[in-house]
Amino acid sequence: MPHTSSTTFRVRYAETDQMGVVYHANYFVWFEMGRVEFLRQLGFEYKQMEVVDDCHLPVVEATCRYKSPARYDELLTVETRLSALRSTVVRFAYRLLRPTEEGPQLLAEAETTHVAVNGKMETRPLPEKYAAPLRSALA
Amino acid sequence: MPHTSSTTFRVRYAETDQMGVVYHANYFVWFEMGRVEFLRQLGFEYKQMEVVDDCHLPVVEATCRYKSPARYDELLTVETRLSALRSTVVRFAYRLLRPTEEGPQLLAEAETTHVAVNGKMETRPLPEKYAAPLRSALA
Amino acid sequence: MPHTSSTTFRVRYAETDQMGVVYHANYFVWFEMGRVEFLRQLGFEYKQMEVVDDCHLPVVEATCRYKSPARYDELLTVETRLSALRSTVVRFAYRLLRPTEEGPQLLAEAETTHVAVNGKMETRPLPEKYAAPLRSALA
Amino acid sequence: MPHTSSTTFRVRYAETDQMGVVYHANYFVWFEMGRVEFLRQLGFEYKQMEVVDDCHLPVVEATCRYKSPARYDELLTVETRLSALRSTVVRFAYRLLRPTEEGPQLLAEAETTHVAVNGKMETRPLPEKYAAPLRSALA
Repeated sequence: MPHTSSTTFRVRYAETDQMGVVYHANYFVWFEMGRVEFLRQLGFEYKQMEVVDDCHLPVVEATCRYKSPARYDELLTVETRLSALRSTVVRFAYRLLRPTEEGPQLLAEAETTHVAVNGKMETRPLPEKYAAPLRSALA
Repeated sequence: MPHTSSTTFRVRYAETDQMGVVYHANYFVWFEMGRVEFLRQLGFEYKQMEVVDDCHLPVVEATCRYKSPARYDELLTVETRLSALRSTVVRFAYRLLRPTEEGPQLLAEAETTHVAVNGKMETRPLPEKYAAPLRSALA
Repeated sequence: MPHTSSTTFRVRYAETDQMGVVYHANYFVWFEMGRVEFLRQLGFEYKQMEVVDDCHLPVVEATCRYKSPARYDELLTVETRLSALRSTVVRFAYRLLRPTEEGPQLLAEAETTHVAVNGKMETRPLPEKYAAPLRSALA
Repeated sequence: MPHTSSTTFRVRYAETDQMGVVYHANYFVWFEMGRVEFLRQLGFEYKQMEVVDDCHLPVVEATCRYKSPARYDELLTVETRLSALRSTVVRFAYRLLRPTEEGPQLLAEAETTHVAVNGKMETRPLPEKYAAPLRSALA
C-alpha cells in the first residue's frame, strides 16, 4: 500500500485575510510541511538532500482545489503521498482535512510536481539513496 | 480582442527562500495583484465589490506552471486576462514575464477560478454591474 | 511566580530567505503563536475573545532583538510571558530558543504591546473574565 | 540635510488578516522595500552588495510603533532615512504614511538596525564604496 504521512498543525492568525478565512496561497506552505514530513517518515531529511547532495526539488507545477475554507486557530491535518516518480521528477498529492465528529472533512486537494536540480538550477537525476525509498513509497 | 492588463512590480527580499529564488507560493500573491489591477482597468475596485455589494471572489482552484525562477529585486510583469465567466464563476489566466533585451521571457503561467459568494460564503450570482464589464472583457 | 508558556514548532522553508536563514519579519508570526498558546494555557482562546466578546488585541508596538539566525527545519521554542497589564493595554515578552546539548540557546528576545479594541478599532477595557486570569499570570 | 527616500506601494489582499487590517509583521516587509529604494537612490543596489562584495545586512533589532491601521488596496508611502552609521552597523528610520486631503497621516514609525556580515554571518566592516555614500546621506 502506498505510504501516506499525516501532519497536524494549527492555523495562524497571520495566515488569515480580511475575508475571515485563510488566504489561498498559504495552503501551499502547508503542503510543503506535509511533503517534508513525508520525506522524514521515509527516513531522510530534505534539508540534508540540499546540503549534503546539492539536490533541490523546486516546484514546477502546483494545483489546489479549495472545497471549504480553513479558519483561524483550527487544528488541521495534511495527508501527503507520492503520486508519481521518474528519474528527475517527483509528484506529491495532498489532502487537507478538518477533524469533525462525523469524521474528517476534506478542505482542499492538491498536487505539486518537482524537478530535481543542483544549486545552479540544472536538472539532475535524483540520487539513488533518495530514489529507492521514494520508489518503495509508491508501491 | 480580449482585454489584458499588465502590472509591474519589484520582487521583495521577503519573497525569496534559501534556494535563492522566489518561494513558489508567493506567485499566487502576485497573480492576485494582477487580478485586482485587471478589475480596476475595467472600471471597478474589488474592494468596493466586497464592501458595497457584499460580493467576494474566493479562489476555488489555482494552478501555476513554473518555467524559470524569479529572483530578488527583479522588475517583473503580470499579464492578466479573463478566461471564463459564468453567473457565479470567474476564471483568470496569468503570465508572469521578465523583460529582456530579446523580449519578454515567460517565467510562469497560471489560472485561478473564483466563485462569487456573500459574506457568509454562500454562492450568489455576480451583480450585473460587475458581470457586464467582465463580459465585455471576454469578447 | 509569573506564568510562562512554551510553544515548540518547526521552521518552514517558506520562512527562509536567500540569506539562507529565516526572514526577520517571520519571527513576529512565531511570537503570535506563543501569545495565543499563552492565553490558551491561562484557560481561554483568543478566537473566542474576538468572536464572543468583540474584543481584539491589535499590536501597537513590536520590538525584536535578533541574536543568532534561525534556520530551516529546526525545532525551536517560543517562551511567552505577560510583562505588563493595564485596563486597556497588554504587553507580552518572548524568548526564542534553540535546544542544544549545552542547554537552550537564545536566538531572539522580543516584546509586543497590545491595546484592547472593539471591531471598530475603538479602545475598550479588557473584559474582566480575561483581565482576571491575566492578572494572576503576572503575579 | 539628511537624505530621505519615498516609496509608494499598494496594500495587497494577502497582507490583511481577519481583523480587516494589515497584519503587523507585514509592515517590516514594507520597511525593507523602503530601505532597498533608499540605497538605490544613493546609487547602489543591495543585491550587488550581496553578490559582488559578499556583504549582507541582516537585521539585529527591529521596532515598530503602530499608530493607525493600514487597509487593503490603499496606496501608502514609506519614507526612509539613515539614522545611524558605524563601521559595521547601519540603522534606518521609517515613517509609513497615508496621503489624505489634509496631508499625510502617520500610520507607523519604525527603526531597524543592521550589522554588516559576510556569507558566513561573520561581522565585517562595510566596504568603503558603500560607507562613503551612506555617510553623505547622514550629513
